[in-house]
Amino acid sequence: MIDLDSILNRYIPDDSENSDIQKTVQEMITRIRARISELGINATPVLVGSVAKHTNLKNADLDIFIVFGREYSIREMESIGLRIGHEVLPGGVERYAEHPYVSGYSGPRKIDIVPCFQIESNAKIISSVDRTPLHTEYVLSKLPAAKRRDVLLLKLFMKSVGVYGSEIKTRGFSGYVCELLVISLGGFESVLKFFAETRGRILIPRESHLASRFDSPMIIEDPTDITRNAAAAVSMENISRMRIESKLYLESPSEKYFEPLQEIGPQAARDRGTCLRIIRLPRPELVDDIIFSQADRLRRILESHLDDRGFRCIDSDVHTGSDIQVIIETELCNLPAAVRHTGPPADSQNAVSFVRKWSNQKIFRGPYVCGDRICVDVFVERRKIDQEILSIINGTNIGKNLNRLKSEVEIIDPLKTGQKYEILGRYYYRSLVT
Amino acid sequence: MIDLDSILNRYIPDDSENSDIQKTVQEMITRIRARISELGINATPVLVGSVAKHTNLKNADLDIFIVFGREYSIREMESIGLRIGHEVLPGGVERYAEHPYVSGYSGPRKIDIVPCFQIESNAKIISSVDRTPLHTEYVLSKLPAAKRRDVLLLKLFMKSVGVYGSEIKTRGFSGYVCELLVISLGGFESVLKFFAETRGRILIPRESHLASRFDSPMIIEDPTDITRNAAAAVSMENISRMRIESKLYLESPSEKYFEPLQEIGPQAARDRGTCLRIIRLPRPELVDDIIFSQADRLRRILESHLDDRGFRCIDSDVHTGSDIQVIIETELCNLPAAVRHTGPPADSQNAVSFVRKWSNQKIFRGPYVCGDRICVDVFVERRKIDQEILSIINGTNIGKNLNRLKSEVEIIDPLKTGQKYEILGRYYYRSLVT
Repeated sequence: MIDLDSILNRYIPDDSENSDIQKTVQEMITRIRARISELGINATPVLVGSVAKHTNLKNADLDIFIVFGREYSIREMESIGLRIGHEVLPGGVERYAEHPYVSGYSGPRKIDIVPCFQIESNAKIISSVDRTPLHTEYVLSKLPAAKRRDVLLLKLFMKSVGVYGSEIKTRGFSGYVCELLVISLGGFESVLKFFAETRGRILIPRESHLASRFDSPMIIEDPTDITRNAAAAVSMENISRMRIESKLYLESPSEKYFEPLQEIGPQAARDRGTCLRIIRLPRPELVDDIIFSQADRLRRILESHLDDRGFRCIDSDVHTGSDIQVIIETELCNLPAAVRHTGPPADSQNAVSFVRKWSNQKIFRGPYVCGDRICVDVFVERRKIDQEILSIINGTNIGKNLNRLKSEVEIIDPLKTGQKYEILGRYYYRSLVT
Repeated sequence: MIDLDSILNRYIPDDSENSDIQKTVQEMITRIRARISELGINATPVLVGSVAKHTNLKNADLDIFIVFGREYSIREMESIGLRIGHEVLPGGVERYAEHPYVSGYSGPRKIDIVPCFQIESNAKIISSVDRTPLHTEYVLSKLPAAKRRDVLLLKLFMKSVGVYGSEIKTRGFSGYVCELLVISLGGFESVLKFFAETRGRILIPRESHLASRFDSPMIIEDPTDITRNAAAAVSMENISRMRIESKLYLESPSEKYFEPLQEIGPQAARDRGTCLRIIRLPRPELVDDIIFSQADRLRRILESHLDDRGFRCIDSDVHTGSDIQVIIETELCNLPAAVRHTGPPADSQNAVSFVRKWSNQKIFRGPYVCGDRICVDVFVERRKIDQEILSIINGTNIGKNLNRLKSEVEIIDPLKTGQKYEILGRYYYRSLVT
């Protein structure tokens, strides 16, 4: 038996942190209210996020929204919101989600001041950010205080097995999804049992009307907007990981399922008789989500082209940090010099033109008959993977922001350089917690 | 326009050869008759084959059958037949098809003396050899003298494009099939048009009742036994070759489609960045057909096993001469040291046991989640193709006669030895006549 309460106590705020949070929130709200009243506008500061919902782990960020009346234009809302943000958070920087906002620090604690519009449940929204205050209200009204512990355990478990976080980079479960899971399934263990036992697509409620509308592998209806799938961001891979880790934990519970995911630092390549390449690009000045989706698209383009050409992809991954790194591992670094090219059946209309076409070219062997078809063995162009990667990158649209960087692409064989690369840490250590 | 008659004259016997043939046949028949009468047996010598049917090219063999009454046992027929054979063909050697027979020479001309039983059309036969005299009678009665030229052109064409001959090694068209084609389709050009134009399976007659009985790619009913497919030996590959060569010839006729197929001698390997191996075994004392089918079975076993293991086969071939040679060309000589092993879906019953099983083993990476499944990267055994070929040969039944030779198998990398091998001649020069 493991003592869940004692585990939990290690990761949730102690009394001193709690009173510190109280103090900081009070201060911020007071300052924002003062500015609102000085400016004479119709807006209200609202604490949202995990701290507001009492489902915050240690050192949680503070999210304070400034909720504007609908009489303002988007431009007014945004510019006034940013102005207040900068005034109450000196030294803060502007970031951008669906609205621009100000992000800064009060002491060691990170605070985001986000302007949004006021909306009602199930009302038309201008940006999905506007829905956040409704999520906070919903959880506060539906999650009994006794169940907050279950949400916290679930978050810890999900962090530990690497499926927590809804950024595009992670494609995992958001805090709000954790709360909805506990509210609808009853508690930490019931959520794990649910993931361990359900098969196929996940639908909450089971007869969700969204099933036919979206094809995501998991659907959980957002009670504040019944047309929205709150789990839209969750990838198949993270659902699978949650399933198998839930099974493993329930079979043999252990504290290690709550320990923070070990961040693996840069690693050197490990020679496993395969071909390994890191494609490195400078990082454009853009938010993580946008960079990550373009880099991930590049990864998929490279993987499918290299596979089609016969290099046989084993695996690939993407890292976006101070630069963009795509790693591709293939079975071959060099294609054979000649390859069989299978033509039309001998009894088809175009068999003759195929033979005539190839008879006049420099080929390795043929044309000859192979079974019921005509074949030729042709010389292979771009046999080396580096040439092929360059040709793919130069010949393909790799996204608005990456296209500009084509001339700066570096193709690295990490086995040759012997250097350590951040992406290799993640690449080699993606094992399950067992 | 090409002058078919003048081409033909180059390849058919001239007057001097014809009178020589006449003389030899008369002599042999007379000698056999004399022996039969001395022995007081019920048997008749019959000239069969192309010479009997007047469809013989230059230097054709003579086939003389000794047709025994059905009152003899197989053993009597065979022993008396062989005895007469040896007596009339001093220095002849015994060979074996479905009956034993004597093969020898009269001057430079090869002669086979073959004992068989007398049968009627569509009667039950003891051996398919017994049917040969019926084929001769049928062709003599149905093929007008004016059409013999068409059969000869067809044989020349088929020899030139490499599809003539019904031995297992060739799996091509027999002389009898050529004659049946001309009889049923009308002439040389109509046969070529037929092959150029028909698609899919070849049935003669088109509504043949044998279609549902056999699954050969070509069926031509044997008029002397309507339950027999006279084209049973013809491979898909040879049908395809006949199809495309007929199309090419009809589109642009040329003398080269009648010139003898160039025999390619031993060749050295050509490095095309692939992996090439010749597997050599001593030749057991057996007839060509049996050796060839076992060697070809070995080829198919090696090809499919190596493909399953990931070496990626490009092509393979078999040569049976003074030894047995199997050639295999693959894309890889060495497998990668590690390979992804895809396990069960994460939501399946046995996902946990898969994880537990692999967590305790020396593996390269994982267990990890890949899409909706659990994967591990495992180390690869027998990465080198030579090890794998030996392991396949030692672990498989490679045929009654080859199993005994396993310890004598040699695996040769012809790129390393630099030597010339007979099989490479055929392997590299199997192009179409164009």
